[in-house]
Order: sequence, then structure tokens, then C-alpha cells
Amino acid sequence: MAELTLTTFDWVPELPRGYVRDLRIRWALEEAGLPYRVENAAFSDRQPGHFSHQPFGQVPWLTDGDTSIFESGAILLHLGEKSDVLMPTDDKGRSETIAWLFAALNSVEAASLPWTIFQFHGLAGDTPGWKPLNDFLNARLKHMESVLADREWLAVSFSIADIAMADVLRLVDRFDGLAACPACRDYVTRATARPAFAKAHADQIAHFAAAD
Amino acid sequence: MAELTLTTFDWVPELPRGYVRDLRIRWALEEAGLPYRVENAAFSDRQPGHFSHQPFGQVPWLTDGDTSIFESGAILLHLGEKSDVLMPTDDKGRSETIAWLFAALNSVEAASLPWTIFQFHGLAGDTPGWKPLNDFLNARLKHMESVLADREWLAVSFSIADIAMADVLRLVDRFDGLAACPACRDYVTRATARPAFAKAHADQIAHFAAAD
Repeated sequence: MAELTLTTFDWVPELPRGYVRDLRIRWALEEAGLPYRVENAAFSDRQPGHFSHQPFGQVPWLTDGDTSIFESGAILLHLGEKSDVLMPTDDKGRSETIAWLFAALNSVEAASLPWTIFQFHGLAGDTPGWKPLNDFLNARLKHMESVLADREWLAVSFSIADIAMADVLRLVDRFDGLAACPACRDYVTRATARPAFAKAHADQIAHFAAAD
Repeated sequence: MAELTLTTFDWVPELPRGYVRDLRIRWALEEAGLPYRVENAAFSDRQPGHFSHQPFGQVPWLTDGDTSIFESGAILLHLGEKSDVLMPTDDKGRSETIAWLFAALNSVEAASLPWTIFQFHGLAGDTPGWKPLNDFLNARLKHMESVLADREWLAVSFSIADIAMADVLRLVDRFDGLAACPACRDYVTRATARPAFAKAHADQIAHFAAAD
């Protein structure tokens, strides 16, 4: 089997630690029991080679033999196709997993990301743009709450879609944005209680701490 | 071949016409020459059956025989796997296309969507939240400008990734957000000059106009 190498930053500030997106990939790799190495890209001085792997100068990217893949969603899908622990192999289960993977990143994260930007900048609450952004996120969460009230995981069984969705909701929960959504909060608790998450999270924290 | 049915709203207000996401799917279907029917879901009074196909009460969804798929990204990927006009069939081309499809929806649209919400609400310019959202979008556009200065399409040839990316950038362009990004603007012009886009766009406009 070709070697899997995950690249993340060599260092990040305190605030995003535990939330950098290599976590999604570490989590999937740990769930699947796939061996991998971790390499560094400079955070402070991003090199041309970085952009050839990740055109936005972000992390992570994954190399699998000669193939280099960017975007956490694309990497998760690639790993889902490698391991049936991460994605059902029947057509219906596969199709549902992929739809929910996109839902996590486009329907939910596109609403949660601006909301967290406002939180990070101390703009939540009384500022003019807060209401439409908060309403947008809460409309999406209301539907996620209905979905998650009825099921343990998004598709047939735990999958890459849950890694993406739980990681997206986890950042909302950091700012107490799930207070009115107990099923979403329970889902985050359930997902992050998995040993593979705990290992991935501890490894990311240790990785950045080692660079201080 | 199983019948393809695309469901969109029966009516939408004037403002989003030409930008409702069924356009991405119509465009792909027209590019691939795949026959399809269009069905309606009520815009004003969304039914339980609607949520069973699209859990957020949005559109579009596509049925392909017994399979029902939501999320424009997941539908595009499904169609890309059906037609080699929409996605290269070699591993490298396929992998690049999928990475760029996620990039369009997560790296770019997650930045452009809050920016367009501010535009729609007349909050662009002087409000406190505008600067971080505008900076976020422009950081992403700066990198897209470098990428698009060097190539005609995102992957080897025109693909589902270009349908998603061009549609995302087209909405930014509507509010003149690509003024400093001539390569992005040329890319939107190039993509929307394709006959399949023109047909898809005209069909969407006619579909909603028929309901007035």
C-alpha cells in the first residue's frame, strides 16, 4: 500500500489549536486504522511548494503515493473510498454519506463559518450584520436538530459525513451556539467520545505544543 | 437507463431567479446531454415529503431511479460519475476535479455566501462586520486569481468543478466583487458563454416566470 502523508502547519496560535482541519483527517485515519506520517508546512512563511499542493495556502493536504489531495472534504471522500469503516459500500449508503458530507461543508459550515468569524471578532450580539448571520445558522441548525433527534449517525453507520458534521458543529458548540439544540449537542458529545477522535485531538494539540 | 428527475421550487421571488441552485444541475445535465424531467416542490408551504428528500427544505434534489440525492455538490459528483463529459475518468483528473468541487463549495462559497448576505441586506461598506467578511472573501479570491491566470478550467478539462466554481463566482460578480480579479471575471464569462449554461439559465428563468 502507498504511504499516506498528512501535511499540516508547523505551528499555529493558541486559539485554533484543537480545531485545525488536519484533525478531520487524523480522525478518519485513526478510525480506519490506516498508518500515516505527519509532515510540516511553514505557517509564518508559506512557500511556493505549499501552494502547489494547497492553492489557498491552507492545510491540510494528503499525499497517497503520487496523488496529492487538498480540501478536507475531498480527502475524507478519498479515505472513505479506501476503507469501508469510513463509508458504506452499498450504493444507497454511499450516496447518503456523500450527500451528508457535502451538507456538512456547504449547508452547515457555510452558515457556521461567518457566525464563528463574528464570535472571534467580538461582533456577536448587537452589530448590524449579526441578525442575518445568526438567523441563517439557526435555520440550518433547526433542521439538523430534527434529523439528529431521530438517528445516531447521519448515514447507515458512523462515516466520513459524521466526522465532517461533528467537527463543524463542535466549533459552534465552543461558542455555546447549540444551547437550543440538545440533539445536536448530544451528537457532538457522542462523536467526540470516540477513541479515534480523542487520539486525533491529543495528537494535534501535542503537534503544535511541540513547536512552542 | 433510469429516469432522471430534478426537483426545484414551483416559484421563487424575482431576486434569486437565475441563481437558484437547480441551475448547477440543469447546466451539468445539458453539458452531458442526459435527458431529465423537472418537477416542482411548493416554495411557500413546504411539505413533509420535501424534507424527506432535502432535510433543509431547500432545492434542488435529483432522483435517479430509486436513488434520491440532495446537495448540489453531491448531485454534481453523481452526474460526474455518470458522464465522462463532466469528469475525467483517469485517477489523477478525477481526484483534481473532486478537490476543486469541494474547494468551490467550501473554500470559496463559505466565504462568498456571507458576503452576498451582507450585499442583499445593504450591509456592505461601513458596518463593523463587513471588514472581516470582505477580507475573508478577498483572501480566497486572490488565490483563485493566481490559479485562473494560468489555466482555462480548474482540472484537465471543463468539469463539474467548473460548474460549481463559476456559479459561485457569478454571484460575487453580480455585486461587482470581481473588479480586482480579471482572471476570475474572464473565467465566469468563459464558463457562462457555454451553450449548456445559456440553456440551463433560460430554462430556470422560464420555469419561475411561468408561475407568476
